Amino acid sequence: MAEAAQKPKNSKTAITPTREENFPEWYQQVIKAADMAENAPVRGCMIIKPYGFAMWENVQKHLDVLIKNEDVQNAYFPLLIPMSYIAREAEHIDGFAKECAVVTHHRLSIDEKTGQLGPDKDSVLSEPMIIRPTSETIIGESMKNWVQSYRDLPLKLNQWCNIMRWEMRPRIFLRTAEFLWQEGHNAFATAEEADADARRMLDVYNNMFENYLAIATIPGAKTPDERFPGAIETYTLETFMQDGKALQGCTSHNLGQTFARSCDIKYLDKDGAQKLAWTTSWGFTTRTIGASIMVHADDDGMVMAPMVAPHQVVILPFINDDADRAKILEACDNVKRMLHAAGISARVDASEARSSDKMWTAIKKGVPVRLEIGARELAEGQVVFTRRDLGKDGKMKVSIDACAAEIGKALQQMQKDLLERSRARLQAQITDVKTLKDVRDYYAADKTGGLRLDYALVKDSAEFAAIAKEYAVTTRCLPFADGGEKVIVAKSY
Amino acid sequence: MAEAAQKPKNSKTAITPTREENFPEWYQQVIKAADMAENAPVRGCMIIKPYGFAMWENVQKHLDVLIKNEDVQNAYFPLLIPMSYIAREAEHIDGFAKECAVVTHHRLSIDEKTGQLGPDKDSVLSEPMIIRPTSETIIGESMKNWVQSYRDLPLKLNQWCNIMRWEMRPRIFLRTAEFLWQEGHNAFATAEEADADARRMLDVYNNMFENYLAIATIPGAKTPDERFPGAIETYTLETFMQDGKALQGCTSHNLGQTFARSCDIKYLDKDGAQKLAWTTSWGFTTRTIGASIMVHADDDGMVMAPMVAPHQVVILPFINDDADRAKILEACDNVKRMLHAAGISARVDASEARSSDKMWTAIKKGVPVRLEIGARELAEGQVVFTRRDLGKDGKMKVSIDACAAEIGKALQQMQKDLLERSRARLQAQITDVKTLKDVRDYYAADKTGGLRLDYALVKDSAEFAAIAKEYAVTTRCLPFADGGEKVIVAKSY
Repeated sequence: MAEAAQKPKNSKTAITPTREENFPEWYQQVIKAADMAENAPVRGCMIIKPYGFAMWENVQKHLDVLIKNEDVQNAYFPLLIPMSYIAREAEHIDGFAKECAVVTHHRLSIDEKTGQLGPDKDSVLSEPMIIRPTSETIIGESMKNWVQSYRDLPLKLNQWCNIMRWEMRPRIFLRTAEFLWQEGHNAFATAEEADADARRMLDVYNNMFENYLAIATIPGAKTPDERFPGAIETYTLETFMQDGKALQGCTSHNLGQTFARSCDIKYLDKDGAQKLAWTTSWGFTTRTIGASIMVHADDDGMVMAPMVAPHQVVILPFINDDADRAKILEACDNVKRMLHAAGISARVDASEARSSDKMWTAIKKGVPVRLEIGARELAEGQVVFTRRDLGKDGKMKVSIDACAAEIGKALQQMQKDLLERSRARLQAQITDVKTLKDVRDYYAADKTGGLRLDYALVKDSAEFAAIAKEYAVTTRCLPFADGGEKVIVAKSY
Repeated sequence: MAEAAQKPKNSKTAITPTREENFPEWYQQVIKAADMAENAPVRGCMIIKPYGFAMWENVQKHLDVLIKNEDVQNAYFPLLIPMSYIAREAEHIDGFAKECAVVTHHRLSIDEKTGQLGPDKDSVLSEPMIIRPTSETIIGESMKNWVQSYRDLPLKLNQWCNIMRWEMRPRIFLRTAEFLWQEGHNAFATAEEADADARRMLDVYNNMFENYLAIATIPGAKTPDERFPGAIETYTLETFMQDGKALQGCTSHNLGQTFARSCDIKYLDKDGAQKLAWTTSWGFTTRTIGASIMVHADDDGMVMAPMVAPHQVVILPFINDDADRAKILEACDNVKRMLHAAGISARVDASEARSSDKMWTAIKKGVPVRLEIGARELAEGQVVFTRRDLGKDGKMKVSIDACAAEIGKALQQMQKDLLERSRARLQAQITDVKTLKDVRDYYAADKTGGLRLDYALVKDSAEFAAIAKEYAVTTRCLPFADGGEKVIVAKSY
């Protein structure tokens, strides 16, 4: 797994190409240099490597707490969905369930004539099954059984699982045939509760984006054409990448009675009448790892937000004289223990690699803080640490005794700074325009940011549809902040 | 989701039938009464309901720490495995990969003639894929790429995921088409390290079984015919259920060079030679929830070991006079906070159900400690609590101030007592015998416990094979404690 760690000698940056030169290829190279994930030998699928998965585990750990704070219960529902379930919900088929993995047999066997392994002809399933592209239909089936009376509502369920959608143009983390997510499915007695819930879960996600991933968002509603199939409202956190393209951060759907009707989720109300329930669904995926990269990483590699970093500090022993080795490594371990005691995750890179290679490995992996301990620092009772996002200007020397407190502060400040930079960039990336001609001119000039304009100009406009098609832009959301009057338009991932 | 909570009036036990009357049916009824899981509408699959899933989450939380303590890194590998990968490992096909879910198409479409939804004929995959029945072959493919030199070893990887094996006779938690597990896959430079690792991971599992699940085990090696396909040694924790049948708790395999060879996992050694690696794999599944039920539950329902209980204490407000309601509920919340502060998980059952129904719900769910607070207790500044495993004899009255400390002690003692009872029962369930005739006589008398005898009598014995077939018994393991000289024989799940 060893990678050549140093910055290429003929390059000013650790990542080639730079963001400026080729953003999509830069993205792939950051993932490779940080050793986060790679394409699987299975078409369209990815392998999430330990460093990338450790980030996802941190995201899960925090988000799971936030979700449980909303009185949602985790559970687990089957991977396979009978085709007939999908067939019930026509809009769902059109929007979703077409490109999916279809299971047709339940056995492999070796053909007696050819000697080849293949699906056994005698094992054809009486009904094909699909691997869940999302679980509204199968969880709806359980809700139908579990909900009898108004006392059973609200019913709030969540599962962390894998999902498959047969993507034609896969892109690691952003769009893969298989990905990981959590999907929440809530049922309510009234329309008002369902809508409030869909908005509330978007708030929970926004907490995750802003305070953990340090990514600024535009919370809003999708336009009708961009809604989840079957939803009456889709709420979204739109984010903008460093190249000016939008990325849908995550979504929360008010499904109205669409799935309650197709799944027959009814309850006996206080007044003795049978009524249809109202449901929501909301999902947060490994795609956010891709967003984190495209928001925070730079031309030297990944930059991890401290709250979700696999480890917040890497301690680099600088050993010039072998006589100092034991003493320096002992000091590194002591500092690690001090950091752990202060609730800071840290590891010592005690590998045999050269010091400069270790430093560049830590930079490319985006470890928030690098801490150097050598003979000189030890003699002075001091350590030097550097924030990943500040480069050499961020170098600080502190006494060993104070280092846990100082590094703790530095991590908190870095977390804030990343969000602030993300917010400042987001604001700079959105331009207010007045007319559809402004929209055309903007994209005709090959710009990639987002535009904000009156939604009335866009809604049902054939002219806008033509512009959208010509420049491959879409309506991203109707920001809550603008009370639904404005729409954001952008190219997107 | 509400269930009739009370003990049936015409029954002495909350679960009908009792263990004695019909053990398999009792098992199903315990799961239903505790609301832990149910059969899915998808054949052979289960839905793990919130209460059952919360237990699994606790198991995961603890086991994940134990695994990471062994320097294993979590990662995620694809759900789908190309058929050609399976075809490489002949033993693996025979042993494993035959009964599996086969994906053959990547799209559904509506037939123009019939109007029916079905797999799209134009979407046939160039190569069928199977849903992972275990991931040796696909993780081996990554290991081949990631391991270059001796410096890359050991490589220790784990994933928590879902698995499918097309079970012909599914049984909830014990044998389902889809289940959840962790699968660890480690690679080493030498045969000795691999064998030590396979044994070490069994120790980790034994820690989990004994100190968290409170289930006594017999650690040992499988006989050759019972090994994992391709393994040179399969180590197992055999457990015994209350009906005297054995259940393989979990296994750890020394795979020798079988998968290194079929996956081509080679490394450049210090001496400059290319060498094949040695690998292990080890898995722990949702089956252990089934084992927990069959070891600890009684005729009144589930009994949760405190270390893995979804909540360790349920607080039951006893309200006879509505005037006391607010005061009693406030006291319940105070006690809950005191317990939380002491690291004890607790919830208040403030539902509208009758007190006796709440009590029976808690009993059937196996909550380790029930705590009652009524007007009388409040007046006395005391609470009454009851250990689930002791029944009425375990009732204790303590002052509110001391209750967190006392309940903490009671939970610790209950955890110990459950393990000790499990160990005592296990010892009583194993009978030492001297001859194959003893084996025949034992099972002919319709007994179901385990027998221990000299392995030399069983190995390659046609007579034993005949007995094993006639009475549906198998060799469970060669216990480490007997140095491989003895074998345990039993009927099993």
